[in-house]
Amino acid sequence: MPSLRPAGVGLRTRLFQIIFESDTRLAKGFDLLLIGLILVSVAVVMLDSVAVLRARYGEGFRLLEWGFTLAFTAELGLRLYCLERPLRYLRSFYGVIDLLSILPTWLSLLIPGAQSLLVVRILRVLRLLRVLRLMEFIGEGTLLVQALRRSSRKILLFFSTVLMLVTIFGSLIYLIEPAEAGFTSIPKALYWAIVTLTTVGYGDITPITPIGQFISAMVMVMGYAILAVPTGVFSAEMIRSIREQHYSDEACPGCGHEGHERDARYCRRCGTWLDEETEDPRHHERGRDH
Amino acid sequence: MPSLRPAGVGLRTRLFQIIFESDTRLAKGFDLLLIGLILVSVAVVMLDSVAVLRARYGEGFRLLEWGFTLAFTAELGLRLYCLERPLRYLRSFYGVIDLLSILPTWLSLLIPGAQSLLVVRILRVLRLLRVLRLMEFIGEGTLLVQALRRSSRKILLFFSTVLMLVTIFGSLIYLIEPAEAGFTSIPKALYWAIVTLTTVGYGDITPITPIGQFISAMVMVMGYAILAVPTGVFSAEMIRSIREQHYSDEACPGCGHEGHERDARYCRRCGTWLDEETEDPRHHERGRDH
Amino acid sequence: MPSLRPAGVGLRTRLFQIIFESDTRLAKGFDLLLIGLILVSVAVVMLDSVAVLRARYGEGFRLLEWGFTLAFTAELGLRLYCLERPLRYLRSFYGVIDLLSILPTWLSLLIPGAQSLLVVRILRVLRLLRVLRLMEFIGEGTLLVQALRRSSRKILLFFSTVLMLVTIFGSLIYLIEPAEAGFTSIPKALYWAIVTLTTVGYGDITPITPIGQFISAMVMVMGYAILAVPTGVFSAEMIRSIREQHYSDEACPGCGHEGHERDARYCRRCGTWLDEETEDPRHHERGRDH
Amino acid sequence: MPSLRPAGVGLRTRLFQIIFESDTRLAKGFDLLLIGLILVSVAVVMLDSVAVLRARYGEGFRLLEWGFTLAFTAELGLRLYCLERPLRYLRSFYGVIDLLSILPTWLSLLIPGAQSLLVVRILRVLRLLRVLRLMEFIGEGTLLVQALRRSSRKILLFFSTVLMLVTIFGSLIYLIEPAEAGFTSIPKALYWAIVTLTTVGYGDITPITPIGQFISAMVMVMGYAILAVPTGVFSAEMIRSIREQHYSDEACPGCGHEGHERDARYCRRCGTWLDEETEDPRHHERGRDH
Repeated sequence: MPSLRPAGVGLRTRLFQIIFESDTRLAKGFDLLLIGLILVSVAVVMLDSVAVLRARYGEGFRLLEWGFTLAFTAELGLRLYCLERPLRYLRSFYGVIDLLSILPTWLSLLIPGAQSLLVVRILRVLRLLRVLRLMEFIGEGTLLVQALRRSSRKILLFFSTVLMLVTIFGSLIYLIEPAEAGFTSIPKALYWAIVTLTTVGYGDITPITPIGQFISAMVMVMGYAILAVPTGVFSAEMIRSIREQHYSDEACPGCGHEGHERDARYCRRCGTWLDEETEDPRHHERGRDH
Repeated sequence: MPSLRPAGVGLRTRLFQIIFESDTRLAKGFDLLLIGLILVSVAVVMLDSVAVLRARYGEGFRLLEWGFTLAFTAELGLRLYCLERPLRYLRSFYGVIDLLSILPTWLSLLIPGAQSLLVVRILRVLRLLRVLRLMEFIGEGTLLVQALRRSSRKILLFFSTVLMLVTIFGSLIYLIEPAEAGFTSIPKALYWAIVTLTTVGYGDITPITPIGQFISAMVMVMGYAILAVPTGVFSAEMIRSIREQHYSDEACPGCGHEGHERDARYCRRCGTWLDEETEDPRHHERGRDH
Repeated sequence: MPSLRPAGVGLRTRLFQIIFESDTRLAKGFDLLLIGLILVSVAVVMLDSVAVLRARYGEGFRLLEWGFTLAFTAELGLRLYCLERPLRYLRSFYGVIDLLSILPTWLSLLIPGAQSLLVVRILRVLRLLRVLRLMEFIGEGTLLVQALRRSSRKILLFFSTVLMLVTIFGSLIYLIEPAEAGFTSIPKALYWAIVTLTTVGYGDITPITPIGQFISAMVMVMGYAILAVPTGVFSAEMIRSIREQHYSDEACPGCGHEGHERDARYCRRCGTWLDEETEDPRHHERGRDH
Repeated sequence: MPSLRPAGVGLRTRLFQIIFESDTRLAKGFDLLLIGLILVSVAVVMLDSVAVLRARYGEGFRLLEWGFTLAFTAELGLRLYCLERPLRYLRSFYGVIDLLSILPTWLSLLIPGAQSLLVVRILRVLRLLRVLRLMEFIGEGTLLVQALRRSSRKILLFFSTVLMLVTIFGSLIYLIEPAEAGFTSIPKALYWAIVTLTTVGYGDITPITPIGQFISAMVMVMGYAILAVPTGVFSAEMIRSIREQHYSDEACPGCGHEGHERDARYCRRCGTWLDEETEDPRHHERGRDH
């Protein structure tokens, strides 16, 4: 977020450091408080959906909800206050999430019947992404993301092939199985094919004819074996990423040996000083010896 | 397809480049149009199988279908026109798919009751294979295919062992469980064994006796642990394939040996200096020796 | 089978080569015939268990079965004839399987009611193991078996830990869930725990209380994440086995560079002759040059 | 447990070696006896929960149970006797497990109705941990644990992302599906989302609307593909751990740096010749230079 620099020194700068950064102790405390508030507020939304709990604690939930809404509104206000271009922030991913976290409650004042809208508040979990990104996991994350990006094209190619198989086997079973078994349309048969291929196996729609069960078994074995492909691709890329993080590409200028760890200073084979741009400190010592 | 060269210069050559290749902007536009047509036409076949939608939009679906059929027929005509040996194309894999995409609709004119035949139109998805092959995924694909081919024998050997286990455990459960539980025949018990071993677990046939449930649990744990084998085999081959991407295409100037690793400086077969543009450092040393 | 040498030259030796080995064309033909007979005979046992088919083709199945039994009995007779110690063979794994393949049918003559015994004939599939072992898959197999043996202890340790978890979570759910949900005893709860942890999920016993469903979800996530362990262990060992098959452990005597492919003769780094026990052929050439 | 040294020589020392260690033949016999007792006692707890078996063998189970309780109490007494700080042991993990193994039975004397308490005895399986730790699996275990610890943060990061997805998709399906399908509250919808994402697929709650089934299919494919991530991460770390087994324990005689690869000849930190028993070949060369 290079364009979100603080607007000036003083209060706004300090607020920016607390709210948007995570270096100082105060900023870390703010992050933890925010995580807590988000988790509790999401839990309240969930519990509020349980009929029994709502009947008993509905009033309390509503009070808590207003507390969270006021707190998140105040937080959003502070965020906007300490930014130079608040409107630009509101249009960013995190700005939209911040708005969606408070809007449903405020709107419920105007449109009292907008019950289903309240579920949107569950999107508050996405606010955790910001805090997590700021905190300690960044190093681990980049490694994961690098491996994912590298394998994404292979996995995409693989999944489009799988989708074709799903289409063909789904249609086949639609032809073979009677409608009583639940295969009333091709989309339903595709739903069955995905349930089977991913080895989920709800059992809400199952083949009843012998041929249908045979095709079913084929789809299962395919789904079982096919799982090896995305896993193998991702494993291979993960191993490559970890190796690249730990081993240098440079060869030893003395003997050409490769695969030195990144922090190595001397070749482990021939003892040559690896960094060609600086001088070997031993030369100095050796000079003194004579 | 080396035998499918265009029949002459001019219109047919240009048509060939647009339809069969993917280099020019026009050819790419044609590919995208084709992808769109295929996807929409397959979607129509699917939606047409839903009773509610058919009742309401059946007439529209039929019109659309004729549109697609005419378009695909025209495309096939153009393909055949710009080829030297059109009959040979019709007997190739893609030719058969092209025919199967349009035949059912045309046949429905002659044999009005051939309802179930219409599902064959879903095979149109296979036409996507041609377009995908032409497009950008080729590099990624060869890597995947190479790893799959290399691991195929190991995985085949593994699966034949698994099939024996399925046969034995299926027959065992057929002996133990009563017919009321659904295990009415050995083929049915094998179906159950595959449903269980692949961890799909429909639940349409489940053991009800304690011994049957114990054997069931064994099959589950086997299926769970066994999954590691194809995954491990494919992972290992994938890593080998990625590593070998680092092999150079250059042959040794001394003995013509190929498949040197990219960082190799001397041929591993005959010891010749591989980089023809610089001088072998050993010549220098040898010179000093004399 | 070093003790199973042929008893003499002539007919018995030639029979031994055909039946127990797989080098000559005749022996390969015999293997293929055997595979075919085994597969068809197992298929007949399976189909015979289907009530509808038995009612219609029962007589044919019985005739076929006697054909197979006579053929397998003749084969066993020939095997025993051309061995020096036939009794020793009968007590080996393959000998027992051979006996189990024919005994049930012969016994059905004496004890006509021994219906359930006939399922034992399905063990004929195990006879495929012998043929597969003789044929082409051996190279692939040893690699698989080596990786499996190496990872077996780690995976065993892992599974004993998993079994403890299953015991504890199974007992926990037995305490929490009412008997109406199907958790009528601890063994049944353990069956549920295995069904859930292995992600099979029959759905024949499912938790109905909120706490039970929460624990359920925990077991599922554990089972989902835990799958990574055997897979990771086996992948790692497989990669090690493949690497060891392709790369030599020896370092170059000139520069100490490692990781040469097994068929390399010169170091790819410094061009040194790798095999210290023989002389570099280039020395010869160089001598001639002068 | 460095603070648990034996209190004196003689009987207590010998008891300590038998009970707490695993080197002598007597100690190994004691371990095996303990494993046997634990397994049988856990089996009795399990079988005792089966109504049919309890009705028939209830009296026998109770007698056996008292036998186990007396044996385990005696064992705990001996353990405490041969330790210098018995109270400290009682507060350790294994001490608590030992207490929990015998308390329920003793308490049942005082509070006869405490039936459900008896299930606590199943925690005796945890006592196996101690024996397993002492025995042969330690080397394999540390490798597993090291790879698990290294991948734990990446997998944790991954799972928190997955939990967000579960929350969002669970709420989405709660909005879309009617309560009749079983999605009566958000927590229930989350339970469904976990059942689906982990590919368990009980089928106790399944979507019935087409849109719900479409979202369902998306969650399944996500769960199927996502499995590759923890597996890939753990595989990669496992390979790293196996490779690092090849690290030497020896420190550099020059700078004390540790963690050299086994084939290293020079310290990668300071370039010192690592093998103290032979001479650095460079000294030779250097001598010639002067």
